[in-house]
Amino acid sequence: MLKQENQDKLKINKIRHSLAHLLAAAVLEIYPEAKPTIGPVIENGFYYDFEFKSPIKEEDLEKIERKMKEILPSWEKFEEKEVSNKEAKEFFKDNQYKLELIEDLEKAKEKITFYTFGKFIDLCRGSHSDKPNKDIKDGSWKLDRVAGAYWRGDEKNKMLTRIYGLAFESKDELEKYIQNQEEAKKRDHRKLGKELDLFHIDEMVGAGLPLWHPKGALLWRIIEDFWYQKHLENDYDLVRTPHIGNRILWETSGHWGFYNKSMYPPMEAGQTLEDKQKNKKAEVSEEYLLKPMNCPFHVEIYKNNPKSYRDLPMRWAECGTVYRFEKKGELSGLTRVRGFTQDDAHIICRKDQVEDELKKVIDFTLFIYESFGFEMKDVKVYLSLRDPNDKEKYAGNDLGWKFTEEVLRKVAKEKKLDFTEEIGEAAFYGPKLDFKIKDVIGREWQCSTLQFDFNLPERFDMLFVNEKGKNERPYMLHRALFGSFERFIGLLIEHYAGAFPLWLSPVQVKILPIGENHFEYAREVFEILKTEGIRAEVDKSNESLGKKIHYAKQQKTPYLLVIGDKEVESKEITLESRTKKVGLFSIEKLLNLFQKEIKNKK
Amino acid sequence: MLKQENQDKLKINKIRHSLAHLLAAAVLEIYPEAKPTIGPVIENGFYYDFEFKSPIKEEDLEKIERKMKEILPSWEKFEEKEVSNKEAKEFFKDNQYKLELIEDLEKAKEKITFYTFGKFIDLCRGSHSDKPNKDIKDGSWKLDRVAGAYWRGDEKNKMLTRIYGLAFESKDELEKYIQNQEEAKKRDHRKLGKELDLFHIDEMVGAGLPLWHPKGALLWRIIEDFWYQKHLENDYDLVRTPHIGNRILWETSGHWGFYNKSMYPPMEAGQTLEDKQKNKKAEVSEEYLLKPMNCPFHVEIYKNNPKSYRDLPMRWAECGTVYRFEKKGELSGLTRVRGFTQDDAHIICRKDQVEDELKKVIDFTLFIYESFGFEMKDVKVYLSLRDPNDKEKYAGNDLGWKFTEEVLRKVAKEKKLDFTEEIGEAAFYGPKLDFKIKDVIGREWQCSTLQFDFNLPERFDMLFVNEKGKNERPYMLHRALFGSFERFIGLLIEHYAGAFPLWLSPVQVKILPIGENHFEYAREVFEILKTEGIRAEVDKSNESLGKKIHYAKQQKTPYLLVIGDKEVESKEITLESRTKKVGLFSIEKLLNLFQKEIKNKK
Repeated sequence: MLKQENQDKLKINKIRHSLAHLLAAAVLEIYPEAKPTIGPVIENGFYYDFEFKSPIKEEDLEKIERKMKEILPSWEKFEEKEVSNKEAKEFFKDNQYKLELIEDLEKAKEKITFYTFGKFIDLCRGSHSDKPNKDIKDGSWKLDRVAGAYWRGDEKNKMLTRIYGLAFESKDELEKYIQNQEEAKKRDHRKLGKELDLFHIDEMVGAGLPLWHPKGALLWRIIEDFWYQKHLENDYDLVRTPHIGNRILWETSGHWGFYNKSMYPPMEAGQTLEDKQKNKKAEVSEEYLLKPMNCPFHVEIYKNNPKSYRDLPMRWAECGTVYRFEKKGELSGLTRVRGFTQDDAHIICRKDQVEDELKKVIDFTLFIYESFGFEMKDVKVYLSLRDPNDKEKYAGNDLGWKFTEEVLRKVAKEKKLDFTEEIGEAAFYGPKLDFKIKDVIGREWQCSTLQFDFNLPERFDMLFVNEKGKNERPYMLHRALFGSFERFIGLLIEHYAGAFPLWLSPVQVKILPIGENHFEYAREVFEILKTEGIRAEVDKSNESLGKKIHYAKQQKTPYLLVIGDKEVESKEITLESRTKKVGLFSIEKLLNLFQKEIKNKK
Repeated sequence: MLKQENQDKLKINKIRHSLAHLLAAAVLEIYPEAKPTIGPVIENGFYYDFEFKSPIKEEDLEKIERKMKEILPSWEKFEEKEVSNKEAKEFFKDNQYKLELIEDLEKAKEKITFYTFGKFIDLCRGSHSDKPNKDIKDGSWKLDRVAGAYWRGDEKNKMLTRIYGLAFESKDELEKYIQNQEEAKKRDHRKLGKELDLFHIDEMVGAGLPLWHPKGALLWRIIEDFWYQKHLENDYDLVRTPHIGNRILWETSGHWGFYNKSMYPPMEAGQTLEDKQKNKKAEVSEEYLLKPMNCPFHVEIYKNNPKSYRDLPMRWAECGTVYRFEKKGELSGLTRVRGFTQDDAHIICRKDQVEDELKKVIDFTLFIYESFGFEMKDVKVYLSLRDPNDKEKYAGNDLGWKFTEEVLRKVAKEKKLDFTEEIGEAAFYGPKLDFKIKDVIGREWQCSTLQFDFNLPERFDMLFVNEKGKNERPYMLHRALFGSFERFIGLLIEHYAGAFPLWLSPVQVKILPIGENHFEYAREVFEILKTEGIRAEVDKSNESLGKKIHYAKQQKTPYLLVIGDKEVESKEITLESRTKKVGLFSIEKLLNLFQKEIKNKK
């Protein structure tokens, strides 16, 4: 089975690779001064990076695609030829990118091969279609889009133009893919976030720092309330810590040493603006750092009082907003941001409590996915272990690693998780179990995580007094269920395509009085719903009922209540769901229906 | 009446002033090399600052006090003598502090007077007791404590030793004062915060940055839940914004210009550590600032979409944590910190909505005080107006100020607030109404505030489309009810002396099984209470019942449930409140009692 899949992959990759060359050939015919660089195969297609004399646009793709179609029939086969370094360099003497690649091959002592296709010659390792003009089917590929890309992905290098293409084995497959993509675009949380007025990201405030509008902030609060309630029910305690801490704290924790590239730079407090302009250090220097993690603060709370074996386990939860200076190019809506709120918890326990605690966390994680409508098929689980051949790069000792890796595996199996083991993927501080969810375009995002930490207990010398009255080092677990509120809400928007179940919808019911003489009764109904904790809004605009319904459905409001003469008279309400007219209801029956649905979380 | 009060004050101040001299005289007899500097009268007593050759301690005060008592009988009167600058300087030639004071008098062209008391001569302006040995009553004064103080209060100057004394007209008054102070100390939120394990402030994290322990964080969450629920009921919307923003935002808002001394310094992101060490600017500089206010973010949300007169009023609430770099010496427990969570809201409305919005805010404010057991006699209200003779220092125009000052006064009167008007005390951006609460030692702290803002709407060019289809500038109100969670909780701890009413108590009920064979039933009761939303804890220690009760009362737990043989058998519980045994209860009756008390918020 797997073998067949691999062969298929090989075949489609050969097609995609051939198309990359075809793209370069067409570009060079139209833009003879363009410099081709590299053109690899990617998921769903291929790309090729060029240096153009003057930048090209999306509109130019049509012209290039036409040229490709013109050339293709003449490409019967690919001719391979080994060349000497000298020959190769002479051929590409005007293309510094290819020269760099040749030099790399030279250094690595690899042979250099040229491939010729029709009139077009390219430096290449091989693996193309045997008969490109036969294998590449009509309508099975298209050029997709243009983007900027640094040469070799390095910001310090020149920005090149990348042309992306889509390619499949058949026209059907391409069409299906495009249809899926369009469906996905409609579910994209960035698009829905704007349409449903949930949040925006503001250039003036900063990249990766979302601002939550009323409906988005309410959605957040609903989720947060649920989170807190469930944490208290599951015997967690809350803690609360600041967003900044003295640099000494981060030096002690090791974050400053290992992690400073991902942190916002220090604030040198005590230094006046004048000092700063004169590059003068403050007399009393206090450097503060924005927190990239909550952990060291929780450790400081732990250390504030001596702890006994009777006090353990501690389960300390905090929705703590942390800041990490991610590269601008890697930011993505709510799924990768620079400021995000971890639904963090630290479990500090004795060795004999570890297994039980792990089970509880996994149960809790699965409960959360279920509550938000994710099925386990939507979730991929990874068990990340240490590389046993590279022990010195990890904190902790052999015994600790053996115990924690084994207990993680044991519990994951017991809980029937379908997990993949990944050797060498553990954090330097301990093994972990990660849960990842795919977004609409198929990218996996880490959400829940459960990590052992050997580092902080050592660095902060965390202790408890055991039953024999001796000091003992506790085990420490980091865990997050959502991962971050921002990312989880982003994925949730896509998961539900913005049509949240009743319990999550910021506006649960839209009341639509047909005319002004129905406003009074609409207000009455609104007040009753509000008293009963139902989140309703009245549409008091002058629009027609049709437009009011259209707008409410566009906003994906779960229920619409239409109020006209008939309803005012009978003191009833006509109820519509997102998809259909439900019927005439008394308020009592209505409340019953809503409350049942809210309780069921469907 | 006032006159009499002034005379009294004059008399007691003369006594206190005389005692300051007496203190200096005694110090010089014991430490001839000490240099006296200044010794003013303060509330409840006096102090004198000295430069000592080697530092003195609290224990040395007894010796000094004894010496003062020894000298006092010989002080029948004070002799005044005017001296020339030259004479004065010659006399104090070894005391650079007094020399500095003499030079100041010289510059100000004031006469210089020496006062002699027994053998002791001091530079002084006068106003002492006529007959110190008669006026200063036995037991009416005492030395209080020792502290460090910079010469002239300037951090750049030398640190001196300040000796504080307490002084009243009679022994009775001193005793009463000391008793009050001791009472106050017991209620001090810093002391109770530690005893009740609510929070701590950690040197490693930073001054003014509290860490909230489980019970404190739960107390916070209970208050926050109540706050959110009431805000939603009062038709506020929630918003949510980051803790940092690009410097451009703060330059636009004016905070960076007016306020940068109180802000944490910028984070120059994009600059690598190496760049920093070489004092090299980043190529792409992005400077971020920790927010001292939430307002500019709310304004950016407002501006994200065009607004119509139909959309107003907006009432946008956020519990937003802000950071201000207060001077270390001014920090004080939870009442003045460097990171604090404002229970902030901005009301953006039309002119015709202003009055109604003000009334709603005042009603809401009074409701909050009532809910937390503050009476209006605990609260002082100030109406801060602009100085009409110094108009150019304020944002906005005459019409706007006239309207807002008048409407604030009108509404404050209508709501029967007992307020004090303060001319010239308005913020530069608008008039305001402040509500202040006294802490246990009598210091007033600003809590609720209601402020107009003419500045931000102008700077950010905030607009809405009015009924005529024209752009119009909205009115903007800042308001906070608690002021900050930290300060309000600090004051709340003192207000209740840590004995929170049932609805606020982090632990509402402590279950005390007498022996191990009562654990099972204790657990059963615990589970029932938990299901009903009652926050309970079981004391499973090996301590005696007496000790368990003692500890629970020390923790100010509202209710104790004692479980022994009798209770296990009858499936009942013996209930004790903080102050008395309440009796034997069935669980049903118990739940009833608790739920009623929680609902009443008493």
